[in-house]
Amino acid sequence: MATRRLFGGIDLGGTKIQTVVVDDGHEVLGEARHPTPTSGGPARVAAEMAAATRDAMAAAKLEPGGLAGIGVGSPGDVDEERGTVSGARNLPDWEGSFELGQALAESLGAPVRVGNDVGVATQAEAQLGAGRAYRSLLGVFWGTGVGGGLVLDGRHWLGRGGAGEIGHMVVKLGGRRCTCGREGCMEAYAGRAAMEARARKLHDDGRKTDLFKTMRKHGRDRLTSGIWERALETGDKLARELIDEAVEALGAGIASAVNLLDVEAVIIGGGIGVRLGQPYAERIANEMRPHLFNDHRPPAVEVAALGDLGGAIGAALLVASSDAGR
Amino acid sequence: MATRRLFGGIDLGGTKIQTVVVDDGHEVLGEARHPTPTSGGPARVAAEMAAATRDAMAAAKLEPGGLAGIGVGSPGDVDEERGTVSGARNLPDWEGSFELGQALAESLGAPVRVGNDVGVATQAEAQLGAGRAYRSLLGVFWGTGVGGGLVLDGRHWLGRGGAGEIGHMVVKLGGRRCTCGREGCMEAYAGRAAMEARARKLHDDGRKTDLFKTMRKHGRDRLTSGIWERALETGDKLARELIDEAVEALGAGIASAVNLLDVEAVIIGGGIGVRLGQPYAERIANEMRPHLFNDHRPPAVEVAALGDLGGAIGAALLVASSDAGR
Repeated sequence: MATRRLFGGIDLGGTKIQTVVVDDGHEVLGEARHPTPTSGGPARVAAEMAAATRDAMAAAKLEPGGLAGIGVGSPGDVDEERGTVSGARNLPDWEGSFELGQALAESLGAPVRVGNDVGVATQAEAQLGAGRAYRSLLGVFWGTGVGGGLVLDGRHWLGRGGAGEIGHMVVKLGGRRCTCGREGCMEAYAGRAAMEARARKLHDDGRKTDLFKTMRKHGRDRLTSGIWERALETGDKLARELIDEAVEALGAGIASAVNLLDVEAVIIGGGIGVRLGQPYAERIANEMRPHLFNDHRPPAVEVAALGDLGGAIGAALLVASSDAGR
Repeated sequence: MATRRLFGGIDLGGTKIQTVVVDDGHEVLGEARHPTPTSGGPARVAAEMAAATRDAMAAAKLEPGGLAGIGVGSPGDVDEERGTVSGARNLPDWEGSFELGQALAESLGAPVRVGNDVGVATQAEAQLGAGRAYRSLLGVFWGTGVGGGLVLDGRHWLGRGGAGEIGHMVVKLGGRRCTCGREGCMEAYAGRAAMEARARKLHDDGRKTDLFKTMRKHGRDRLTSGIWERALETGDKLARELIDEAVEALGAGIASAVNLLDVEAVIIGGGIGVRLGQPYAERIANEMRPHLFNDHRPPAVEVAALGDLGGAIGAALLVASSDAGR
């Protein structure tokens, strides 16, 4: 027990904060999930992240101060050296740069490292999850937005620091306006935020749907992955239509990435991706097929094996692997 | 003179066969260009490649048998081990697999290595041309088709052997039919073969254009890069419209690739790319901009510095660098 070191991992998402406590064998000893605050800016988000970490520690029956380090997977522009996050578009009121690492280190009393959310989730799948068998893979995180992570020849590819923006590959010239302001991005069709905005507009225009009724019934203020899933199960026509468009856009965008990179595997993760699971991974693979140039040899398409916890486990790897290297 | 070794390079294109003779410092001592035969299949093409190589040798005042090795950059599916080429869609009557390396070695009396045309041209630009200053780049070869080559962290990225098919990235879901049979590919708008088919259809439908008149006047049977350039210069409206569409599709597709990979530079080569040069590289960069996610830091966009000879020089590198390694 004296030699076992424990690590915290925090996955900061647009909808939820997922935390884990893992041991040095990457086993999850405790976890917690809090909704991401929708107001109050970065300081409020950081306080909620700390609270969710304490809850995961309590679930692991761990005393305060018991973590050797905490890793964070964050959206936005992450400066890993300084532990700052700026331009986190999918987080509320996150203007300018915020010293997230320092705020959490002070609050939790342990060293903190901050990395890119999609990057750490991809690393987790590559090292511990559905990507273990492959040397090259594309992680596609289908959630509030659509993020991508690349492992090429066993190494995480970041380009000049900003690689992996698969959600903003253009799938339709002159197409739908994206939440990022650009036109025809894959995320404009497949991101949950964009899908919700589209559903709301069509509903306001008179289209029938139970999506918003179900949302209110479950006490939510946005269309979560669970609500989309329920609507598909009950045969809600608008929901089905929007998910069909999302799957079509994902198929085209992912096929484009595969035509460019010829990776061995595509791992589908993210809130909706994990929730809808294998049948939808297969639907995405089917939508990719007509666009694949090397169609005799499609890549494997698999659901993220670490599920909802992949991002948080990957975040913990930021400190667990740097610790191991010391 | 006794220690200087000379190498041949052959760039096999859908329209022309370009050959060079280079010394071990990569200096071009002689070159020749023959039209690619439009009938007779692989054997006829191989014979023309040998003839064009002999012409380059004659231009370099070199005796038969004077080459230490010959490299070939070929379209289609290249088996580098066996020197075979199959499925070369942009070459006439090239059904099944053909032992191109062996045919040329017998005809020219020197060892032959065959590589992918776009791959060798990208390597040439990365090592000797416009890409020398960059560790990561995307080569875009805008010609009969639109090919792509990737250098990531200084190494040529081939994936499982088929990477770089940037021409078949989807830029418009439900869009124009590509010459490959798929829908909405970048090449369906930007490839010279697709542009010619589109121009012919619109002309047959009654649109006015001098493209085909100019073609016949210059004794051509297809719309070469030079004919497109002339039509742009004389303000031919249909030509301008189709080139505008091509530039728009290139901008979207290349921006998508940059969003995914965040490379330092994009090198624009290929028959049309080199012919239209810097002003059109700038137009492509302008069309990329609205789609770039990291728009504060666009990649450099440059014209291939080795021009029309890049493919042939890159092909020679296949034997020159393997020779150097012995």
